[in-house]
Amino acid sequence: MDFKDFSDLAAVDHLQQIAAAPCDLTRPGLLSADRFARYRLSSCGFDLLYATQRLDDTVLDGLQALADEAELVEKFRAMKKGAIMNRIEGYESEERQVLHTACRDIFGSRPDNPAAADQAKQQLALLQDFLRKLEEGTVVNHQGKSFTTMVQVGIGGSDLGPRALCLALAAYALPNRAVRFIANVDPDDAAAVLAGLDLSRTLVNVVSKSGTTLETLTNEQLVRAAYEKAGLDPAGHILAVTGQGSPMDDPERYLASFYMYDYIGGRYSATSMVGAVTLGFLLGYDPVLELLAGAHAMDQAAEEEDIRNNMPLLMALTGIWNHNFLGQPTLAILPYSQALIRFPAHLQQCDMESNGKFMTRQGNPVRWQTGPVVWGEPGTNGQHAFYQLLHQGTEIVPAEFIGFRHSQYGCDLEVEGTTSQQKLVANMLAQSLALALGRSHENPNRYFPGNRPNSILLADRLTPYSMGALLALYEHRIVFQGFCWNINSFDQEGVQLGKVLATRILVEIQRQDKEEAEPSADDSPEKNLLRQAAVSGRQ
Amino acid sequence: MDFKDFSDLAAVDHLQQIAAAPCDLTRPGLLSADRFARYRLSSCGFDLLYATQRLDDTVLDGLQALADEAELVEKFRAMKKGAIMNRIEGYESEERQVLHTACRDIFGSRPDNPAAADQAKQQLALLQDFLRKLEEGTVVNHQGKSFTTMVQVGIGGSDLGPRALCLALAAYALPNRAVRFIANVDPDDAAAVLAGLDLSRTLVNVVSKSGTTLETLTNEQLVRAAYEKAGLDPAGHILAVTGQGSPMDDPERYLASFYMYDYIGGRYSATSMVGAVTLGFLLGYDPVLELLAGAHAMDQAAEEEDIRNNMPLLMALTGIWNHNFLGQPTLAILPYSQALIRFPAHLQQCDMESNGKFMTRQGNPVRWQTGPVVWGEPGTNGQHAFYQLLHQGTEIVPAEFIGFRHSQYGCDLEVEGTTSQQKLVANMLAQSLALALGRSHENPNRYFPGNRPNSILLADRLTPYSMGALLALYEHRIVFQGFCWNINSFDQEGVQLGKVLATRILVEIQRQDKEEAEPSADDSPEKNLLRQAAVSGRQ
Repeated sequence: MDFKDFSDLAAVDHLQQIAAAPCDLTRPGLLSADRFARYRLSSCGFDLLYATQRLDDTVLDGLQALADEAELVEKFRAMKKGAIMNRIEGYESEERQVLHTACRDIFGSRPDNPAAADQAKQQLALLQDFLRKLEEGTVVNHQGKSFTTMVQVGIGGSDLGPRALCLALAAYALPNRAVRFIANVDPDDAAAVLAGLDLSRTLVNVVSKSGTTLETLTNEQLVRAAYEKAGLDPAGHILAVTGQGSPMDDPERYLASFYMYDYIGGRYSATSMVGAVTLGFLLGYDPVLELLAGAHAMDQAAEEEDIRNNMPLLMALTGIWNHNFLGQPTLAILPYSQALIRFPAHLQQCDMESNGKFMTRQGNPVRWQTGPVVWGEPGTNGQHAFYQLLHQGTEIVPAEFIGFRHSQYGCDLEVEGTTSQQKLVANMLAQSLALALGRSHENPNRYFPGNRPNSILLADRLTPYSMGALLALYEHRIVFQGFCWNINSFDQEGVQLGKVLATRILVEIQRQDKEEAEPSADDSPEKNLLRQAAVSGRQ
Repeated sequence: MDFKDFSDLAAVDHLQQIAAAPCDLTRPGLLSADRFARYRLSSCGFDLLYATQRLDDTVLDGLQALADEAELVEKFRAMKKGAIMNRIEGYESEERQVLHTACRDIFGSRPDNPAAADQAKQQLALLQDFLRKLEEGTVVNHQGKSFTTMVQVGIGGSDLGPRALCLALAAYALPNRAVRFIANVDPDDAAAVLAGLDLSRTLVNVVSKSGTTLETLTNEQLVRAAYEKAGLDPAGHILAVTGQGSPMDDPERYLASFYMYDYIGGRYSATSMVGAVTLGFLLGYDPVLELLAGAHAMDQAAEEEDIRNNMPLLMALTGIWNHNFLGQPTLAILPYSQALIRFPAHLQQCDMESNGKFMTRQGNPVRWQTGPVVWGEPGTNGQHAFYQLLHQGTEIVPAEFIGFRHSQYGCDLEVEGTTSQQKLVANMLAQSLALALGRSHENPNRYFPGNRPNSILLADRLTPYSMGALLALYEHRIVFQGFCWNINSFDQEGVQLGKVLATRILVEIQRQDKEEAEPSADDSPEKNLLRQAAVSGRQ
């Protein structure tokens, strides 16, 4: 495998040339029946409609050449098999495999990485057993009553993915099961969540791969104190998901313990025990398997070499087209599904933490743009909020719409001849067209320039299976882009400096209580800032 | 009042020159005690620490000249007094006053616009009376039981601001009072909210200024159907907040009705009845007055001519410095307070819908950048998510931190010598410094370039008063920027085209059910897209 700099690729040079005159979506007749039929790809239950991207066959051929030259699919296959993809050559780095796909490589007889797939199966068997005991009434509280709520305590990858999935699939929750989340070190986060709970009927799932995450350990202590205050034994209520050998790997202290492995990065861990335990509590075991099956199907579809038949790869490359060649710095993810309300926040993490990098895999500064700013909110809500800027602002924002033909609950009403679900989907399609086509108008304030690139992802219904496929689709899109930009999408060194400075400031806060020294010219920036912030050790 | 094009201002020309060599935050010794003390401003309980912006006295003087030349404060004062600020000269436009500040101009004897202030007082008196009846048990359900939940049905400005405020202040909720929100036309939004409620103890507050908002009217019908199905009379449960004379202005159909006025834009309406009714239900009447008092204090502080003593104006101008002169296309709002989880979404709307414009107030295309993409999530959560890109990405993202010295609930625990609240604030300060200072390192992957502009807003505690001040601070920052860019921040023509196309697509969906015609070369883009989307009238 050969990792070349993005700007050294012949395909990049060629794309730069054709980007000088990209396709204009407002050209009359461009959005023909033929174009819509041609720029459409179906995979794992999703249809990707990309006729409203600013591309044509020449661009697609150029992107195919880019994928081939950068050996994107080959690298993806190597990743699935267990290559050490999380590394920086020649420098100290994590030096790890990247095997989140193994979490769902449990259906066939020949997994890509048998050792990791076996570990996934072991953990799933433990989870199945635990969930059965909850259902049978073998695991109950001290009064013999069933547990009705699970609180997941985690942050970052141990929070955003699981939270997004639980919200997405809450329509399928088991009767009398609910989940909540605590993430922030802000004590009001835990206080607000715990205030509304009957602790005696609540399980708490503490999730930290390293077992050393400041926020999570602090919140675990807050939760343990709350149990003790309520006269309950924390060990009868608290579960752990952590890495083998971590400080939290101490089954005595927990009602149940599950493992995740160092070859799974936090932001890619939603289909490991990090997401599966709480999701299993909410939905039961079988829906978890369906989620994994959907993800696994996309894992396989991502191995296709033809970009016109590989949905994550095509989305990766159109993203690169918009970002690197058309110069758009951000990307909006716009699900037309209220259940996906936190999915953009998960993708924001997964994308920006993976590809917000400025050093190559060889430790050289990049000479091209890497990951964009990723953001978004559900439609139609967004239409009444920030869409004004999407249509008439001076910043051009490429958009990815996600929608479903049918609702989850099936509680709908026909008003003026159409259901709410039809109105929802019609609005999504309309926004895609409005961004692309624009509109001329004699009143300049009612003129829409159009030519704003976007695409639509559409499936029949948001189910565990389609959710799994959608999650994996975006995971792979991000990974393909990272390979193409020749960066390591699997570490996160950019979070270290803040931790170091926070520790220094905490030391300063503690010291400040004892002595309040006069400012001096050689005080550190931390000390100077802290003085002006007037934050005291006394609460 | 003179509205000049941004690029024609002498101050803009001057700022462009000094922007060629902006202050470098990584310069050793720059972040001195003196700089922190100097670049600090206190107003209405908030301290703004802006030493970590890329500016110096020369830049500040240039920004002052910009504020003076563009007559920003004069325009703001005119707005408060009732000038027709919502207009495009020479073209058909809304031609309205902009008087959201009148909603809180109720404390002194000489309001800026007496007529609007009187209307605000009348509505507040109605609200006070209604809340008293709830408390006294005069307004109860058919069984004589009190109401415990209020569901606000609204979208955009009738949802995001009220939702953000209720979440921000839920720590102060009255016993046995809770609020929920339904916004999306997605039928699963209403289904998920209604599934968890005892309708007999629930009030529903339907909010739409025009009384014609598709999503809100559809959801009102869904809710009415749910009441009828439960054998309850909707008229005993449903309230309305709408404009006088709107189709929803029909007190017979509602348990209570409140007015908002056409001089208040949806995204600026959180302190009108649009936000006050549900907030009053949750907290009681007095906290609503405190919120208004905090906002009113900021309304007055925003009239100061000296930018170093006018917090919203200074924030507006540093934003313009970063966006127009240093070329940063986005802005991250990062509250270190879990209670502010939806405040960035509110600001995203308020900012992007106001300033995502490309025509001047005279109907000419702008020749400069207007509003940035605004996005954000609470810290410390974000530190474990997208901060990687903030520190080491190729996109530079200016950041605004918001924090509080004390928690709301006061439920905290000392772990390793410091409380969670101290850890929270220390992390915020550390991130500000890390972005500014960066760090050299022999391992290139652990090197931080720094020099990334940011500022910190800090108050003692998130209360109704400080929430009001914070809300008004951002409202005015947005308005000042709009004045400076010579755009109309108060209309939203950019949402119209989507509505037109959605209607056409809905017609097409209905027609499609009857006849499935073969594609033809002269089909419209709507028809072509709909065919590929395979969305049917049959659910």
